[in-house]
Amino acid sequence: MIVVMKPNCDPADQASVVARIRELGLTPHLSQGEYRTIIGAIGGATPEAMDQLDQLPGVDHVQRITAAYKLASREFHEADTVIDVRGLRIGGPHVHVIAGPCTIESRAMLFDAGRAVREAGATLLRGGAFKPRTSPYAFSGLGEEGLKLLKEAGDELGMATVTEVMDPRDVPLVARYADILQIGARNMQNYNLLLEVGRANKPVFLKRGFSATVSELLMSAEYILSQGNHKVMLCERGIRSFAEEVRFTLDLSSVPLIQEHSHLPVFVDPSHAAGKRDLVPALALAAVAAGASGVMIEVHGHPERALCDGPQAVLPKRFAEMMVQLRQIVHAIGKQMWPA
Amino acid sequence: MIVVMKPNCDPADQASVVARIRELGLTPHLSQGEYRTIIGAIGGATPEAMDQLDQLPGVDHVQRITAAYKLASREFHEADTVIDVRGLRIGGPHVHVIAGPCTIESRAMLFDAGRAVREAGATLLRGGAFKPRTSPYAFSGLGEEGLKLLKEAGDELGMATVTEVMDPRDVPLVARYADILQIGARNMQNYNLLLEVGRANKPVFLKRGFSATVSELLMSAEYILSQGNHKVMLCERGIRSFAEEVRFTLDLSSVPLIQEHSHLPVFVDPSHAAGKRDLVPALALAAVAAGASGVMIEVHGHPERALCDGPQAVLPKRFAEMMVQLRQIVHAIGKQMWPA
Amino acid sequence: MIVVMKPNCDPADQASVVARIRELGLTPHLSQGEYRTIIGAIGGATPEAMDQLDQLPGVDHVQRITAAYKLASREFHEADTVIDVRGLRIGGPHVHVIAGPCTIESRAMLFDAGRAVREAGATLLRGGAFKPRTSPYAFSGLGEEGLKLLKEAGDELGMATVTEVMDPRDVPLVARYADILQIGARNMQNYNLLLEVGRANKPVFLKRGFSATVSELLMSAEYILSQGNHKVMLCERGIRSFAEEVRFTLDLSSVPLIQEHSHLPVFVDPSHAAGKRDLVPALALAAVAAGASGVMIEVHGHPERALCDGPQAVLPKRFAEMMVQLRQIVHAIGKQMWPA
Amino acid sequence: MIVVMKPNCDPADQASVVARIRELGLTPHLSQGEYRTIIGAIGGATPEAMDQLDQLPGVDHVQRITAAYKLASREFHEADTVIDVRGLRIGGPHVHVIAGPCTIESRAMLFDAGRAVREAGATLLRGGAFKPRTSPYAFSGLGEEGLKLLKEAGDELGMATVTEVMDPRDVPLVARYADILQIGARNMQNYNLLLEVGRANKPVFLKRGFSATVSELLMSAEYILSQGNHKVMLCERGIRSFAEEVRFTLDLSSVPLIQEHSHLPVFVDPSHAAGKRDLVPALALAAVAAGASGVMIEVHGHPERALCDGPQAVLPKRFAEMMVQLRQIVHAIGKQMWPA
Repeated sequence: MIVVMKPNCDPADQASVVARIRELGLTPHLSQGEYRTIIGAIGGATPEAMDQLDQLPGVDHVQRITAAYKLASREFHEADTVIDVRGLRIGGPHVHVIAGPCTIESRAMLFDAGRAVREAGATLLRGGAFKPRTSPYAFSGLGEEGLKLLKEAGDELGMATVTEVMDPRDVPLVARYADILQIGARNMQNYNLLLEVGRANKPVFLKRGFSATVSELLMSAEYILSQGNHKVMLCERGIRSFAEEVRFTLDLSSVPLIQEHSHLPVFVDPSHAAGKRDLVPALALAAVAAGASGVMIEVHGHPERALCDGPQAVLPKRFAEMMVQLRQIVHAIGKQMWPA
Repeated sequence: MIVVMKPNCDPADQASVVARIRELGLTPHLSQGEYRTIIGAIGGATPEAMDQLDQLPGVDHVQRITAAYKLASREFHEADTVIDVRGLRIGGPHVHVIAGPCTIESRAMLFDAGRAVREAGATLLRGGAFKPRTSPYAFSGLGEEGLKLLKEAGDELGMATVTEVMDPRDVPLVARYADILQIGARNMQNYNLLLEVGRANKPVFLKRGFSATVSELLMSAEYILSQGNHKVMLCERGIRSFAEEVRFTLDLSSVPLIQEHSHLPVFVDPSHAAGKRDLVPALALAAVAAGASGVMIEVHGHPERALCDGPQAVLPKRFAEMMVQLRQIVHAIGKQMWPA
Repeated sequence: MIVVMKPNCDPADQASVVARIRELGLTPHLSQGEYRTIIGAIGGATPEAMDQLDQLPGVDHVQRITAAYKLASREFHEADTVIDVRGLRIGGPHVHVIAGPCTIESRAMLFDAGRAVREAGATLLRGGAFKPRTSPYAFSGLGEEGLKLLKEAGDELGMATVTEVMDPRDVPLVARYADILQIGARNMQNYNLLLEVGRANKPVFLKRGFSATVSELLMSAEYILSQGNHKVMLCERGIRSFAEEVRFTLDLSSVPLIQEHSHLPVFVDPSHAAGKRDLVPALALAAVAAGASGVMIEVHGHPERALCDGPQAVLPKRFAEMMVQLRQIVHAIGKQMWPA
Repeated sequence: MIVVMKPNCDPADQASVVARIRELGLTPHLSQGEYRTIIGAIGGATPEAMDQLDQLPGVDHVQRITAAYKLASREFHEADTVIDVRGLRIGGPHVHVIAGPCTIESRAMLFDAGRAVREAGATLLRGGAFKPRTSPYAFSGLGEEGLKLLKEAGDELGMATVTEVMDPRDVPLVARYADILQIGARNMQNYNLLLEVGRANKPVFLKRGFSATVSELLMSAEYILSQGNHKVMLCERGIRSFAEEVRFTLDLSSVPLIQEHSHLPVFVDPSHAAGKRDLVPALALAAVAAGASGVMIEVHGHPERALCDGPQAVLPKRFAEMMVQLRQIVHAIGKQMWPA
């Protein structure tokens, strides 16, 4: 990190900053500017050290030079991470489509949606058994019964399954049934939950919090990686902005940005961002064109009867049309749609 | 709710919307506009019903008329809620100051900070035993040992205590030691945690998520209230915006806005919003002038040695000066500083 | 519009709202809800009428039902607008690439960049002669000399030209040299400037303000259209959000959203949004995949010598590679790259 | 500025960065970190130089150390600027209230509102003659006739007057009638307008753009100051955020933040931020408690008949009540209400 001193500050203040840097086990390095002195502190910047130096007399501010995350960073792991899930290779040159209903409502609707997306080319099946709902009066999922149905559907259709876990106490239960544990946007900084899925030996699908920066997303991934679980997929799903005409603002610049800073695969969920099915296909194609490792799309056979987020669910027919264009875009940018 | 039809829509579509409204147990009410028809659906708007109607052919969009929260709303509970904590009356005309260190680091520092803020007039003592940290490599609190120290300090200084609980599994533990259970901003939509504190018979201090609207904050309060726990305090602590020169943008308009829509006491935490101690006193005075039931301020005797958020901690001397002005402002707006 | 009354409001208040609606030349229409009464006001909602009704006793709030813009809306003009510029057809199924330097610095650099983008397939040439700069101490363009160079380059290369006009006093001057008048993001709500370009008989390229909603963008287009100039192109160029890791957050959902609500062609400028050249090609491909009528890309032969925004300028070689993929994506989604 | 090199970069790249720094007339200064090298460039950072260095091979990024604004900065002008307007002293310890209608609609309403706010203690009279309106179909002010009425009212009531100028062509006209030229939020980066008011020898009231950072606000002030006009007042009036329950999010942290970085007086306009009169008094009191040099409040005798922004106009009676509390708060924080 570097410590920027106030203009024309007292040499005694500089001296005490230098002393404190040494006390912290770091190596100081002075650089005298026109108006200000900058003092480099070489040897690793912990949050505590930065905060403490920031407050010494004569200090204007402290700037981090190296990213706070390590295991998630390309600086420390250059090659793309490719994750194997039930024989599917996720990441690198491969593009996958995760699809299915928002919430598992019944055996019939899950299997109908599952068959439809499978036929159209989806390789992973999504479906919620535990749903975070803004209102305590809204349907919050079937729980374990939903998990059983999801496993059954995945096995029958030959698809890997993804479902959300919201509570650290539920990690073992969800891990028993699902192939991939999803951490929802609202829980991206639920650190105890991150540690639990980090300890479970299962791939994790980590969604970006809707007010999280890319660095914060990578810091949350770091929580999981720090527990020895290296099978982490990231997912952009839209951020909060003033632009109230869509539910969330899909930030596709995060795709190339994450790929520049991290080796982890990055997916995009246009369904929750748009909140309206008519916008979803265009954004899904855009996400793949931007280089995403895949997209997660909500599909429902009878969304006008859905118990959750029906308005954003794409109909199977429209989904199939979208998949045709999506394949061509994958090819246009030199990647491969799975299965090859 | 009202259903707004598309311009010049098909009468058959109108008819099926009307039929569906009846099927949902609601009463339809047509209103023919110049370009559009509006259909009122009278009798309560569930999220499911709104989403389902939104998707029928010919429907442009659906608008909610009555707020989604009930127990938290002034429509259903007109008088200000006043909460009794260890004999302190919180809410209504009373103003309280909660102060103390960000994190409990040691017995000595906690008692030093506690004594200082007590003398200056604070009635509640804050201190973190479980700290949510962006980095898995940062100090995350002393856990139960910290809780014990906090209880001991509260008892000795005659102050009520507030501390954060991050994990539903820790609610009974934290409830054993603390007078008020704090839900941090990152957990405002950690619904299982909200349900757990709702079941605990303890006052709850619920912080606004940094990307949550006021309605979402009140919906989260509704989760707690729905479990029969009516002792809920709200806290504005800053929201995310593009204005990167402060850590978060303190949204003081939320204070009168919440008071208009809800009967629950609303506090303000300027320390986490500003992230810089020099900005804290001005924002604390502003919060009280805006009508807040109190403020939560981080105070530390030696912040340059703090293990967490030192830069935002106010020094005891500055805190005492601020309290003098704060009392006068409380008086200026016709409220009462506790103790009277 | 509809007027939503407060819960259990006084019938006398309802009566006076009804009377005022009639006084405003509108037709009232009552609808009695469970808790609240809603009163429709049929016949057109002016901002004044909405604001005035909003304040009558017993009124909770007023909601607009029909969009405030007319000429820009699909409700009033269903077919896509296709604009002819120097024989180029812009909008509808056609996709164009606008490229060139941020600022015109010299004859040589403009012609070099122009030739390079022309060869790669760009049909329109961009270049700034008047530059809005955050700092009064930064280079602000060559003015009329730059306009002459741009016209000369456009004529020699057979490209239509686009350049920004910042001041109502400069509209006739810029209109004399350029084929398309650009209104920059900072001037999207510079209403007198909008009226001036509305009176000029030239196509206008209107950039979305970086804190403007899509409705506000369409209201600004309405200013131009209201003066009888129907040749308006819109451009998404990124919005302000908390996500500080890119310069602006490119909001690609605005592309399908604008196409749903308006008939005007919509372009995307990924260069100003990203602020970093490495992110530009991915976002340009995404924009076209999302259905944009084209993209505007900054290209510079020696960006490390550029006097403005060099870091976001793509090198000619990289631009040419991107164009190959871009053509395939245009084809994948069933549109046509111009020239066909 | 400092140039941060990529991890383990090529020494040749370092050498060429050093050479380029010298070529730019700056002094290079190397500092070797654990993973990275940092190169200081001493002697002033122009935007061009920063952008150019940012792009050299091996460079990760460039960081500014000293603020880009000079004349607006406390580094270059330590004492508070106090501006004299018609014998009123604005800034420093003095607090003023600017009040009046949003728009001048008629002689009668302007004088009624003016008298009411004068009696209650306002020292400056506001009123719009040129109004920026989102819709081209909304009332946009009386123009010169309005300016004449404002001057007449100011003279008769002994108040200084503030009114907005939107167009560089109107500066001489507005300057003829008004004491203070207001630049509205939408024009904060209308640079040619800033230069014109900079050349006019009149105090300027510069509103923060609703998506402008504090640094950008100070850069816009710099435009005015750079023309030799040092009578600049700043005004916080709310920023865009996701929090859609108010019109804009009033950012009161900008008050102490601006006072830390600049010597210019800073006002707050809670009326446009809140958009609802019920929220205005609480926010006005908060603004003064936060240390603002004053507030600007919209007051209207019959807002339900107002042609613009009626819902946010405070009634004269409520305004007078607010002024009583406001005086006490000014006293509580040790400032002086004008007139003393």
